[in-house]
Amino acid sequence: MTTVRGYAAQDARTPLAPFQFERREPGVDDVELDILYCGVCHSDIHQARDEWGGSIFPMVPGHEIIGRVTRVGANVTRFKAGDSVGVGCMVDSCRACTSCKDGLEQYCEQGGPTVTYNGRERASQQPTFGGYSSAMVVDQAFVLRVPDNLDPARAAPLLCAGITTWSPLHHWNVREGQRVGIVGLGGLGHMGVKFARALGAHVVVLSHSENKRQDALRLGAHEFVVSSDTGQMKARENTFDFILDTVSAQHDLNAYLRLLRRDGQMVLVGVPEKPLELGAFTLIGTRRKLAGSMIGGIRETQEMLDFCAQHEVVSDVEVIPIQQVNDAYTRILRGDVKYRFVIDMKSLK
Amino acid sequence: MTTVRGYAAQDARTPLAPFQFERREPGVDDVELDILYCGVCHSDIHQARDEWGGSIFPMVPGHEIIGRVTRVGANVTRFKAGDSVGVGCMVDSCRACTSCKDGLEQYCEQGGPTVTYNGRERASQQPTFGGYSSAMVVDQAFVLRVPDNLDPARAAPLLCAGITTWSPLHHWNVREGQRVGIVGLGGLGHMGVKFARALGAHVVVLSHSENKRQDALRLGAHEFVVSSDTGQMKARENTFDFILDTVSAQHDLNAYLRLLRRDGQMVLVGVPEKPLELGAFTLIGTRRKLAGSMIGGIRETQEMLDFCAQHEVVSDVEVIPIQQVNDAYTRILRGDVKYRFVIDMKSLK
Repeated sequence: MTTVRGYAAQDARTPLAPFQFERREPGVDDVELDILYCGVCHSDIHQARDEWGGSIFPMVPGHEIIGRVTRVGANVTRFKAGDSVGVGCMVDSCRACTSCKDGLEQYCEQGGPTVTYNGRERASQQPTFGGYSSAMVVDQAFVLRVPDNLDPARAAPLLCAGITTWSPLHHWNVREGQRVGIVGLGGLGHMGVKFARALGAHVVVLSHSENKRQDALRLGAHEFVVSSDTGQMKARENTFDFILDTVSAQHDLNAYLRLLRRDGQMVLVGVPEKPLELGAFTLIGTRRKLAGSMIGGIRETQEMLDFCAQHEVVSDVEVIPIQQVNDAYTRILRGDVKYRFVIDMKSLK
Repeated sequence: MTTVRGYAAQDARTPLAPFQFERREPGVDDVELDILYCGVCHSDIHQARDEWGGSIFPMVPGHEIIGRVTRVGANVTRFKAGDSVGVGCMVDSCRACTSCKDGLEQYCEQGGPTVTYNGRERASQQPTFGGYSSAMVVDQAFVLRVPDNLDPARAAPLLCAGITTWSPLHHWNVREGQRVGIVGLGGLGHMGVKFARALGAHVVVLSHSENKRQDALRLGAHEFVVSSDTGQMKARENTFDFILDTVSAQHDLNAYLRLLRRDGQMVLVGVPEKPLELGAFTLIGTRRKLAGSMIGGIRETQEMLDFCAQHEVVSDVEVIPIQQVNDAYTRILRGDVKYRFVIDMKSLK
C-alpha cells in the first residue's frame, strides 16, 4: 500500500479538505502514475454533494486525469515509467459483455463500468478514489496514452468533457459539408465546437444569451445564434444535419429539433434533472432523430487523443491550486469559468 | 368534368351524408379510377370534426383507396383500363425538392405533399376530395399497382396503416434475428405485427390490457406483454432491437425506451395531442435512439404492396356499406374494430 495525499468531501455538506488514504501496490496489470493535473467536472459537484443519491464518503472526486507513469506491473508492455498518460471516468468494467467487447465499456452490461471515484472496485468492493490526489494505480486496459505535443493541463478535460462530445460526433459520422449545431457553450459545448470544426463541419453555436458570441466565434464556430430569438431560430428551421445538445438545465428540446432537416440527428449529452417535453410530431413530421450518448469507450478515447494531437485540439482552461477547489465549485455553479478548471497537483505538495 | 357520388362532412358537427361533386377530366398524366374500397382511418375522424384545425368543408374523407382504372391520359404507359390500383395519403407533391427526388414525397419541402383530401391542388388551389366516393382522377406518379393476388378490400388499409408501419420497419432495416416490439394493437399496430413477423423478426406486442393477447398471437406475435405489468416490463429491459410505437394517446415513452438494448431504436408513428415526457438519461445511459416516421414515399409504398403480395400480408378488416360510416366512427372511437373498417363502394350505387 502507498499513502497518497488528496482532497476529499467527508460528507455532502462540508467543503473538500485535505485527506490521506492508501492506494494498492501495482499488480501485474497495473500502471502507477503521479497525477499532474485533474480537471473539475460539474458532476464532481453533484456527487460530492450527494445530489444524485448514493454517494460514498469520504469521496476524492476527479476523473479528468493526466499523469506520469512511475511503475508498471509485469504484464504491462504498452507503458513504462516516464510516459505521459491519462485516466478518464472509468477504471474497470466486466470486459466480457457485448458492450465491453465492442469497446464501449461505458455501457458495460454487468452493472456498468467501475467509475474512477464514488464507485467500488469490482473484486474487493473497496471505494474508488479519483484524481484530486497525488497518485493512483489503474489497470492498464483503462490507461490512455497522451501524445507529447498536447499541453498536459489543457489535455486533462479531454478525458471527460472531450470524450463526451467526441464520441457522438464520431459515432454519427459528423463530417465536412454538414451543418452542425452545438447547444450550450460550457465545458462540454466548447469542446463540441472545437471537434466539430476540426472535423470539417459548418459549426453553429446556439446559446440562450448574446454574451457568448465572441467566444463562440473565437473557439471556431462559423455562426452564433441566440436561441431565445425566435426570428433567428425560425430562419434556421430544417437546416441542420446534426445537433449536439450539451445543456443539463431544463430546456425546450422541440425548439432545437425543429432546426434539424429531414433525417437529421440530435444527440443529448447533458442530463436535466426533470423529464423534458417532446412533441411527437416534431420527430414524425420530417423523420427527425434523437438519441443520447454517455462519455465514450477506451478505444475511442485513445482515437480522440490522437486526433487532438494531430489537429491541435485542447481545452480552454483556468489552472488552479487545489486549495481553490471549493471556490472553483462556487464559480462553476454560477457559470463563471472559461471553460474548465484544472487543478495543478503540484499544489498538493 | 364528371359528376361523382360520395359522402361528405358539411361541417365539423354534422354526420357524413351523401354528396355529389365534380372530378376533373383526366389530363395527359392522369389515371381515372372507379373506387372499389376505401379504408376508414382514425385521421378521417379528426379531420371531419376539425380537431386538428383548418379543415376544408365540405370534406370527402378517405385515403386508403383501392380502385379499378377506367381511363388514362396520353402520357400514361404504366396503367391501362381494368388495372387494379391504389391511392394513399398523397396525390401530388412539388417533385423538385430533395425529399421528392429521394422518393420521400411525404416530406416534400415545398409545403408538404398535396394530401388526398382536406388539401388543395397545387395549381388550382381547389379542394381535394378523398376516397369515400365513386371515382377519382389522380396523377400517375401517385398511383400504385395493386398485385392481383391481394384481396382488394383487405388491401385498402395498406395505403395508410400499412405504409405508415412498413416505412419505419424497412427504413431501419428490421430483420431476422432481431427482437421487435410493437406498442399498441390497433389499425397501425396490427399491420406492424404482420410486417415485423414477415420480415423474420421475433415480435413482441406490448399492450396496456391483457384482452388483446389472443389476437396478438393470432396475428403473428411470438410474445405478448401487458405494459401495465411492471414485472413483465422490468424483465424485458435492455432486450429489444427495435420498437414501433403506434399509440396516439398520452403514454409513458420512458417505460418503452428502457426495453431497448444499447443502440436500440424506437420509432413513433402515433401523434399524441400533448407533448410526451422524456427522461434524457433513458436515452443517454445506453445510447438509445428515438425517431418519428410519417406514412411513406410512393416508391416504398409500391415496394410494400409487392412485399405483401409475396408474403400474403393484408389487413384484418370489417367491410361496411357507406351508410354505416358514422356508426363506424363511433365504434372506432371506443376501440371497437378489428382492425380496420373498409367501405365497400358498391353501396354508393
